[in-house]
Amino acid sequence: MSRPLTVRVVGVGMGSQHVTPEAAAALARSAYVVAAEKSADDPLLALRREIAAAHGLEVVAVPDPTRDRDDPADYPGAVRDWHAARAAAYAEVVAARGGDPAFLVWGDPSLYDSTIRVARLMGPDVRVEVVAGVGAPQLLAARCGIVLHDVGRPVHVTTERRLGEAITGGQTNVVVMLTSGPPPAGADGVPDDWCVWWGADLGTEHESLVHGRLGDVRERIAAERERVRAAAGWVMDTYLVRAPGTTP
Amino acid sequence: MSRPLTVRVVGVGMGSQHVTPEAAAALARSAYVVAAEKSADDPLLALRREIAAAHGLEVVAVPDPTRDRDDPADYPGAVRDWHAARAAAYAEVVAARGGDPAFLVWGDPSLYDSTIRVARLMGPDVRVEVVAGVGAPQLLAARCGIVLHDVGRPVHVTTERRLGEAITGGQTNVVVMLTSGPPPAGADGVPDDWCVWWGADLGTEHESLVHGRLGDVRERIAAERERVRAAAGWVMDTYLVRAPGTTP
Repeated sequence: MSRPLTVRVVGVGMGSQHVTPEAAAALARSAYVVAAEKSADDPLLALRREIAAAHGLEVVAVPDPTRDRDDPADYPGAVRDWHAARAAAYAEVVAARGGDPAFLVWGDPSLYDSTIRVARLMGPDVRVEVVAGVGAPQLLAARCGIVLHDVGRPVHVTTERRLGEAITGGQTNVVVMLTSGPPPAGADGVPDDWCVWWGADLGTEHESLVHGRLGDVRERIAAERERVRAAAGWVMDTYLVRAPGTTP
Repeated sequence: MSRPLTVRVVGVGMGSQHVTPEAAAALARSAYVVAAEKSADDPLLALRREIAAAHGLEVVAVPDPTRDRDDPADYPGAVRDWHAARAAAYAEVVAARGGDPAFLVWGDPSLYDSTIRVARLMGPDVRVEVVAGVGAPQLLAARCGIVLHDVGRPVHVTTERRLGEAITGGQTNVVVMLTSGPPPAGADGVPDDWCVWWGADLGTEHESLVHGRLGDVRERIAAERERVRAAAGWVMDTYLVRAPGTTP
């Protein structure tokens, strides 16, 4: 096989309603979809199967290598090892199958998603083609009918893990991803008088939105998060927090 | 007319190839498209006409109120006045015409776009419905085949006007919008040893990408910017700058 492999990393937003004509064209040029399978009844795998089927593609599910996510001593090293293990598992499947695979990325591949990095590790001759999709922060903004910042001001996008350092560093308008609960309280957390716009399972039938003063809605967000998880079988959420009086 | 007005603010990415099924459905529920006309041969108006026509909608062009953009004494005030003037011009056109209008937003309405704010000013009973689209930063990332940040790190999104304060404030990974030239040099600018990923007229036939060490490519970006402007008749660019050695 001297033909080089093209791996297409395709952002599909939150489902079929967000698959752009550009994404559809990229899928039409692909032979099949490769997807990580995290458990036997992985709900995000089911959603990928739905999109793939709508575009006439079969899904090859690859059991996900286990990840030592919580090694606090060497987080980047743990992530690198896990990326390499995923890439090796994918490369093996693709070599056996033949043809150019596509990966369906939930949301957009440019934010807190490892698919591009993993695809590049699949082999030295791999050509990676990326198609942008509608991401969770912009969908949150659309659903809430807001712009992500005050006029002409910055928006800082970060993870729950680094939210504390953003706030102590002076950020006053922060989008948070890779969340594990509502905006944290306490010394390292988000002050009660900040505003929050929170959304879970955006764009799905289980979508939930909460907006208000953080001190007033923190418990409601925690409860909604569990309600959505129970109803949908999974929960992915994101939020924007903004200090009071930042509008100039 | 007791029927309340619904104004749809629809992100269309960089053109037809980015119009999602959700956006198409929002356009199908709209009666016509309203668009600002900045000059008689406004090229972005022509692109809007193309998308509207593809969805069977007429474009009502509204001459754009002049904007005192460079009043340094009261920038937010100047923006507010200009938003109010735009909203009044739109409301007049919509009252005369009847039916629910749609606005086509280039890129995504959630970042550095005034359409949502202007739509809310069109009247007290206006219902604003927003549809997310593919934005310039994520399209830049896709075209360059990159994620917008190092593993687990933040991305700071701001304007050229506030880029200096972001860098002096310690940001090391910054997406810049509302640009008027290449990343600025000098004391308030971006250091020469930072990396830049720059893109202009992304997703169009005139798309141009430059990536490299800023000190090596700054002049090339300036030249490309003018080349694209001459070829396309307009230029809209965005870039990501990143300090060296930020990968942990």
